[in-house]
Amino acid sequence: MTYPRTDRTTSLRVPEKLGYDVEAANAILDEAHVCHVGYVAADGLPRVLPTVHARLGDVLYVHGSTGSRAMLEGRGDGLDVCVTVTLLDGLIYSRAWFHHSANYRCVIAHGKARLVSDAEEKWTALERIVDTYGDGRAAASRPPTPKELAQTAVLALPLTEVSVKVRTGGPKDEPEDLDLPYWAGVVPLSLTPGAPVADEGVTAAPPAHLARAGATVQS
Amino acid sequence: MTYPRTDRTTSLRVPEKLGYDVEAANAILDEAHVCHVGYVAADGLPRVLPTVHARLGDVLYVHGSTGSRAMLEGRGDGLDVCVTVTLLDGLIYSRAWFHHSANYRCVIAHGKARLVSDAEEKWTALERIVDTYGDGRAAASRPPTPKELAQTAVLALPLTEVSVKVRTGGPKDEPEDLDLPYWAGVVPLSLTPGAPVADEGVTAAPPAHLARAGATVQS
Repeated sequence: MTYPRTDRTTSLRVPEKLGYDVEAANAILDEAHVCHVGYVAADGLPRVLPTVHARLGDVLYVHGSTGSRAMLEGRGDGLDVCVTVTLLDGLIYSRAWFHHSANYRCVIAHGKARLVSDAEEKWTALERIVDTYGDGRAAASRPPTPKELAQTAVLALPLTEVSVKVRTGGPKDEPEDLDLPYWAGVVPLSLTPGAPVADEGVTAAPPAHLARAGATVQS
Repeated sequence: MTYPRTDRTTSLRVPEKLGYDVEAANAILDEAHVCHVGYVAADGLPRVLPTVHARLGDVLYVHGSTGSRAMLEGRGDGLDVCVTVTLLDGLIYSRAWFHHSANYRCVIAHGKARLVSDAEEKWTALERIVDTYGDGRAAASRPPTPKELAQTAVLALPLTEVSVKVRTGGPKDEPEDLDLPYWAGVVPLSLTPGAPVADEGVTAAPPAHLARAGATVQS
């Protein structure tokens, strides 16, 4: 299944890197812990905020406090957003300055985000966001009180206008540069978890659901 | 030295996490390999693009192709941008859903970016961008031809309106939750380099400047 191509999701350059595959987009959205939410503030100027997110089917839920500007401005008929998720996979050292690059996987989703007001949808979205810390984490922590719920805002972005950009592989130098005496190649990068550090007073063993963050735990 | 607080760089919430220290901002900008550039496109809607950047003093240079939309739209009297750089340092597992969080270091810079047109400034900016792949990398690779230069665009954002947001430490649960039987703590995360992978035909040893990417190399 693929997303339709729109003016916003096509590019004037490097079209070969652009894709519209739903499963590829979902995999990136699900792997990333952080997204960047862009919107136009009331002053007409752009804002870009990092936050956590979770996907449920074809909806991307973005977390925020009801006090944050983006959420305030998302009331009413919704907030036009561009949500970008980038996973950096490596640095490309080419023989030429011009061909220095990065390996990455990136999803860009455009649309109108709505403030989630339905109580059941909000609960489900928050549960899913907590479960991005590890499947089962929501069941292994305390759900929100009515006061905490009121202090939390969730934006819902329907995933309808989405592009996927991926670069993999090594340097792509010009043929005439291949004999230059410079080192060229890739330094792979990955977001690597350290050992879990328990909070003071915690006696429970690190749970298996920490593996979502990639942590090595005894299950 | 600190940046002045402006309407755009203050927050309606968690003010305790916000800072304006220039050195703290610089350290984050210099460590990150990728930034997210937000701007308002000609259709009035937000765009957020990942790209590489480099800082030279109090100017942030953002790389792009002259063919990319952002750069095209940056011609003329400049482009209002919000550039956000986020380093994810860990996931916070709290006893309560509500207090799940992340450790991170984030810089948000606002301002009008101009397309760099001065040949010398453009060269210096590109050299610095290549050097973010490792100090000395620019000298150890081929500089651009006039044609490559023409195909490359650089935006310059003066660093004048900048905020720094940092979260460190462990969970911050409610006192009444501390005895709940749930595991709570931090899973640290860090962007970790793998061993350098040389491109086909490269006979030079991995150079010491790869250490910028954190790679372990014999120098």
